[in-house]
Amino acid sequence: MELLISYERLLSFTHEIFQKIGVSPEDARTASAALLSADLRGVDSHGVARLIGYVRLKEAGRANPTPSIRIIHETPSTAVVDGDGGLGLVVAPFAMRVAIEKAKQVGTGWVSVQHSNHFGIAGYHALQAVENGMIGIAMTNASALVVPTFSAERLLGTNPICVAVPAGTEPPFVADLATTTAANGKLEILQRKGGVAPEGWIQDQEGKSTTDPHALKAGGALLPLGGDREHGSHKGYALGAIVDIFSAVLSGANYGPWVPPFPAYVPMPTGMPGKGIGHFFGAMRIDAFRPADEFKQHMDNWIRRFRSAKPVAGQEKVLIPGDPEREMEAIRGKSGIPLPMAVVEDLKGLAGKLGVAFPEGAWINPGQ
Amino acid sequence: MELLISYERLLSFTHEIFQKIGVSPEDARTASAALLSADLRGVDSHGVARLIGYVRLKEAGRANPTPSIRIIHETPSTAVVDGDGGLGLVVAPFAMRVAIEKAKQVGTGWVSVQHSNHFGIAGYHALQAVENGMIGIAMTNASALVVPTFSAERLLGTNPICVAVPAGTEPPFVADLATTTAANGKLEILQRKGGVAPEGWIQDQEGKSTTDPHALKAGGALLPLGGDREHGSHKGYALGAIVDIFSAVLSGANYGPWVPPFPAYVPMPTGMPGKGIGHFFGAMRIDAFRPADEFKQHMDNWIRRFRSAKPVAGQEKVLIPGDPEREMEAIRGKSGIPLPMAVVEDLKGLAGKLGVAFPEGAWINPGQ
Repeated sequence: MELLISYERLLSFTHEIFQKIGVSPEDARTASAALLSADLRGVDSHGVARLIGYVRLKEAGRANPTPSIRIIHETPSTAVVDGDGGLGLVVAPFAMRVAIEKAKQVGTGWVSVQHSNHFGIAGYHALQAVENGMIGIAMTNASALVVPTFSAERLLGTNPICVAVPAGTEPPFVADLATTTAANGKLEILQRKGGVAPEGWIQDQEGKSTTDPHALKAGGALLPLGGDREHGSHKGYALGAIVDIFSAVLSGANYGPWVPPFPAYVPMPTGMPGKGIGHFFGAMRIDAFRPADEFKQHMDNWIRRFRSAKPVAGQEKVLIPGDPEREMEAIRGKSGIPLPMAVVEDLKGLAGKLGVAFPEGAWINPGQ
Repeated sequence: MELLISYERLLSFTHEIFQKIGVSPEDARTASAALLSADLRGVDSHGVARLIGYVRLKEAGRANPTPSIRIIHETPSTAVVDGDGGLGLVVAPFAMRVAIEKAKQVGTGWVSVQHSNHFGIAGYHALQAVENGMIGIAMTNASALVVPTFSAERLLGTNPICVAVPAGTEPPFVADLATTTAANGKLEILQRKGGVAPEGWIQDQEGKSTTDPHALKAGGALLPLGGDREHGSHKGYALGAIVDIFSAVLSGANYGPWVPPFPAYVPMPTGMPGKGIGHFFGAMRIDAFRPADEFKQHMDNWIRRFRSAKPVAGQEKVLIPGDPEREMEAIRGKSGIPLPMAVVEDLKGLAGKLGVAFPEGAWINPGQ
């Protein structure tokens, strides 16, 4: 059973909650739009379900509701941004605006961010560049849930990479991928339903491959994209490592096993080498390479050729990265966002505690 | 049985061969160093074994030995380079130099390349930036051997990405990865030995998963990193697509199924939308983000923490991307490069035809 709430009402509710924890109206607007873009695009694990988590970070003194976000170093095409412990949902849009402004000046802009917090979905931030007619790149590190190939220790986060590319009459190409085989959200679904995970998703505490979806919480780990060495897990490991280095070693944030956890009840790592978590953003102006209309015409051609590829038996069509999320956004923007019971309970608790009216919705899927 | 030839002798031989097909002494030196870096680093499929392939490309009129390589568009941080049909082994170093020069000026440099040919291994080019104290990025598209997820048609090359990052006292981090589950070279070894490929590497002509290593040559395809949808192949597909777009849609080269093949006997695709094959390079100055000594100290810390991670049972240690290739380079730089019989025969044929003395070597592994 799920409660269907319109995007607008959920946005207004989220906006109020952020203000109640001391975030300015403008920053709360920025944070709400970034957070709910996950729900709109179907990445339920990173959306409003995490609102209570952000509130707890603030309550635990791990997130600063009124940060002085600033550029601490720059060149014509680069900057390092200090997020001052603010919500990543506010820090990341600031940093992406810096990248876009630099791209306007010198063709591209590249911004590494220190002292931030979790920023929601990478796709939202990369798409800010697309709205400015540019290619957008966004990545972030996260607390360690993933093992390098051959490691029994978790040293990397799910470290997503998003690259978003504008097209002409076709919708943009949006590749938004965690550098693991499986998303943690999918594992949580299997945990709730009592399912079995495919081989190559997780390993247990001893480092053995397992299909038990609860293994992660029992000290196991997510596996890098590829799953095992024979299937290229060293490549997924390398990609996660690149995200970690660009986001944190370049900016002065924490990296590897020292990245602060999202749940406020999890103790902070000891001996942290940097500040907060790190992100990395890029913006590339199309006409810094070739006339934008030419590029867009060829992107349309690229997209149409791939979309019209002959599918394998049993599959309807070949998808373009970003297709599923965009289709979901069209549906949910119109009909609303379905929230599972557990999320509704969390949000109602938050609403009561902070004195915010919980938005009206309609119950659906009563059989589930 | 293999012939062990010293790196210096093989370099001198390769240098002469390139000059015999009309390449200038200087360009031949550049091309030889780039090509043989693959043999040194243990990527045998992309090294001197391909020399005959480059010669055939020239003979077929598909590679220009005396190109006018030039910048056709630029901004302070970007450029598009026209390779004029030259060897990628010469065009790519030119383009990387442009990226490095731009990084010196404005912090980063980004160069997309059209009308090139195959450039050897991505790692060699990315490492040029590291030699200048910068982070280096190199990628290239290649002729279509790989299927997008759900596709029965091959639309992408193995499209490698390399990111190389300097450290302090530790050796550099060098992630150099094809965006497929398995390298084509590994498949060729299985073909020769009559082995069985693991699940997730290839599909047959109909698009069904297969373990037959010959399936690729019978109209099948390599699978993107991840193998199948359940194991994240849509991510490998997205990564290969990003490489294709950055290398070719941004530069005006051919993309998707229209990328020219490396073997000169394979007909060119029809309806090609661009010129030659495409590459993409990036160089980022470390001190465009933070003081280089600080960064290097933290990179050393990152590397040491990962290298000292507790390994899973049965594995000796956790590796840093670039470790195996660097170890191989140390061995082969000293003791020589082992060439299989088939490669020796090819090279001797080439030597005879072009009137170049074949270098002396020593036969090893007589039992194999």
